[in-house]
Amino acid sequence: MKALVYHGPGTKSLDSVPKPTVLQPTDAVVRITKTTICGTDLHILKGDVPAVTEGRILGHEGVGVVEAVGDGVSNFKPGDRVLISCITSCGKCEYCKQQMYAHCEDGGWILGHLIDGTQAEYVRIPHADNSLYPIPDGADEEALVMLSDILPTGFEIGVLYGAVKPGDTVAIVGAGPVGMAALLTAQFFSPGRIIMVDLDDARLEMARKFGATDLINSGGADTLDAILALTRDGVDVAIEAVGIPQTFDVCQRIVRPGGHIANVGVHGTSVDLQIQDLWIKNITLTTGLVNTNTTPMLLKTVQSGTLQPARLITHHFSLDEMLKAYEVFGNAAQEQALKVIVDA
Amino acid sequence: MKALVYHGPGTKSLDSVPKPTVLQPTDAVVRITKTTICGTDLHILKGDVPAVTEGRILGHEGVGVVEAVGDGVSNFKPGDRVLISCITSCGKCEYCKQQMYAHCEDGGWILGHLIDGTQAEYVRIPHADNSLYPIPDGADEEALVMLSDILPTGFEIGVLYGAVKPGDTVAIVGAGPVGMAALLTAQFFSPGRIIMVDLDDARLEMARKFGATDLINSGGADTLDAILALTRDGVDVAIEAVGIPQTFDVCQRIVRPGGHIANVGVHGTSVDLQIQDLWIKNITLTTGLVNTNTTPMLLKTVQSGTLQPARLITHHFSLDEMLKAYEVFGNAAQEQALKVIVDA
Repeated sequence: MKALVYHGPGTKSLDSVPKPTVLQPTDAVVRITKTTICGTDLHILKGDVPAVTEGRILGHEGVGVVEAVGDGVSNFKPGDRVLISCITSCGKCEYCKQQMYAHCEDGGWILGHLIDGTQAEYVRIPHADNSLYPIPDGADEEALVMLSDILPTGFEIGVLYGAVKPGDTVAIVGAGPVGMAALLTAQFFSPGRIIMVDLDDARLEMARKFGATDLINSGGADTLDAILALTRDGVDVAIEAVGIPQTFDVCQRIVRPGGHIANVGVHGTSVDLQIQDLWIKNITLTTGLVNTNTTPMLLKTVQSGTLQPARLITHHFSLDEMLKAYEVFGNAAQEQALKVIVDA
Repeated sequence: MKALVYHGPGTKSLDSVPKPTVLQPTDAVVRITKTTICGTDLHILKGDVPAVTEGRILGHEGVGVVEAVGDGVSNFKPGDRVLISCITSCGKCEYCKQQMYAHCEDGGWILGHLIDGTQAEYVRIPHADNSLYPIPDGADEEALVMLSDILPTGFEIGVLYGAVKPGDTVAIVGAGPVGMAALLTAQFFSPGRIIMVDLDDARLEMARKFGATDLINSGGADTLDAILALTRDGVDVAIEAVGIPQTFDVCQRIVRPGGHIANVGVHGTSVDLQIQDLWIKNITLTTGLVNTNTTPMLLKTVQSGTLQPARLITHHFSLDEMLKAYEVFGNAAQEQALKVIVDA
C-alpha cells in the first residue's frame, strides 16, 4: 500500500509498504478514506520528536472503513465506517477509568508516533473498541476528520480546562487549526467576547467569520495594551494555542484575578512564569494532551448542526499528492491553509 | 495606645500612638485581646512590601471586642467578641459577589499593609459587617487567632485549590505555619498519604504529630527521588508553601499526570516553569491570596473539635514584649517557634 513515511529529520517520502494486519485480538485494521496533516507532523519532520524513528508512517487523524478485527473486538465489524481517535486507549487502566485516555498505560498518543499512523491506505488501530467511534448515518465524513484531534483538543484543553462560562471574555492566542477549534467550541458556552490574537491578518479575518468578536494582530508593540483595553481588568480565560514563550507570556499578562490560563500549545522550552505577580491573583493554569473523552459529545454537536467542522477545511488532495499537501500545509500562512483533507 | 510601628526597612518600635476612631459608617473599632505575627510581617520589615509606608502599625490577625461601630454596621455592636479576618471586604463589588474577597475593590489585604493593623491595643476595621466574624460562645479565643489568616490560607489556597480527595497522595513543601495549616485541613478530606517536605527536622517531627504520614528532609540531594519513591507515578497534589524557585521546582517535578500544584507561597521572583514537560501532563496549577470565604466553615470545624488550631501555637508574649516576640518568631527554626500569641 501507499504511505507517507518518515526517514529522519527533514526527510519523508510516499512509499510502497506492506499492508498492516491484525496483531492483537483487540486490534482493528481500518481502510483509510480520508486523513489530514497536523502541526505535530511538521514538528516530527523537523526532528523535534525523537521518539519517532525512521520508517514510521505518520498521521494520527482520519476516517475509514473497518477491514478486519481481532477476536477481542466487539463494538466494530468489517464494513463499519469509523472515526479514528488520535488517542489510543485500553479502557481498563487507572487513567482510562478516569477518562484520562491521553495517559493510557497501553496507549495515549501512539499513532504516527510510536506505531504506524493514518497517512496511508490502511492503518492498524490497537484497542479498537475504545479508540474508534462509529460514524453516524448521513454524516459528512470529511468534516469528522476534524474530530480525530483538533476539535477535541481545542475543546477539552482550551475551552473545558479554561472553564469558559456565559458572558466571559476569552482571548485565544494563536489562530491556527487548534486555536480555531477552541474558537468554534468556546461558543457552546456563550462567552460575551472572544478576542483572537495572531500575527496573520488573513487568519484573523477567518476567525471573525468563525465567531471572534475582536481581532488583535500581535505583530504590533502594543499587543498587551490592545487586549487589556477591551477588558475592565483582564480576560476571564486566556487560551494559549501556539506553544512558544512569547505567546505564553501574553496569556499570563492579560488574565484577570480569578481567571484561567488554558495552555493548549506544545512547548519545546521552559517559560518564565511571572509568579511574583500571579501568586496573589488566584489564577488557574492548566495544561494537557487531549483525552478525546468528549468525542461522543462533539459528534452530537456535529449531528445537530451546532458545530460545523468542515469550515476548518481549506484544501483537498489525494494520497498521491501527499508531498504537495505537506508543502501547502507547511506554508500555511502564504497558502491561506488551515486544514487539508487527503483522500486515500 | 501601644502599637508595633514600622519605621522603614529593618526598623520597628513599640510606640504610643493615638487610638483609632470610627471614620466611615461601615467601620468598627475593635479592642484587640490577642494578636500574632505572620511571615508576611517579616517580609514587610525586610522592605519587600514597598506599599507599606513608614508609621504603619503592622499585623493582620487577631481577636477582640467591639468597642464602637459606625451607623452603617448592623451585624455587630459594642461588646461583641469578634474574629478579625486578614481580608477586608465590602461585600458588594463584583469580586465580593463571587466570594473573591481577596480582590475586593475597596478592601482585600489592607490591614497592617495599606491601613493600620492589629498589633496594637485597638484597630479600625472597615466594612466591619463583612470583615469580622462573631466568636461562638465558649470558643478558645487564642485558637481562633489562627483563623484570621493561616488556616483559611492553607485550606483555601492549598487544600481546596489543590482539590485534595480521599485516598490522594499529597506533598506539602514547607512546614511553616501555612504548610502546617494545609496539613491540618487536608485531613478533612481523608487523603491516603501526606508527605511533608522541609529543611528542618524539628518542624518535620511536629508535622508527624499533626498527621503527616511521611517526612522528607529536603536538605539531601535526592529530595525528588525520595518523594517519587513513595508514589507510583508522582503525587496527586503538591502544595507549595514556601515561595522560592527551589520549592516551586520540587512541586512541578513530583506532580503526576492529571495532578494539581497549589501554590500558596508568596513569591518575589519569577520561576522557570518546565512547560516542555508539563504541557502533556494535564496538570492544574493554582495560585492565590486567601479569600477567607471559608472562615465560617472553619469556625464550625473548630467548634466540632475536628480542627484544633491551638496546636499551632508554640509561644506566648504580652504586647509589651512585642519586640521579643518578633525576635523569637524571626528565629523560628532555632526557637522551634511556629505561631506566637501576643496578649494585648
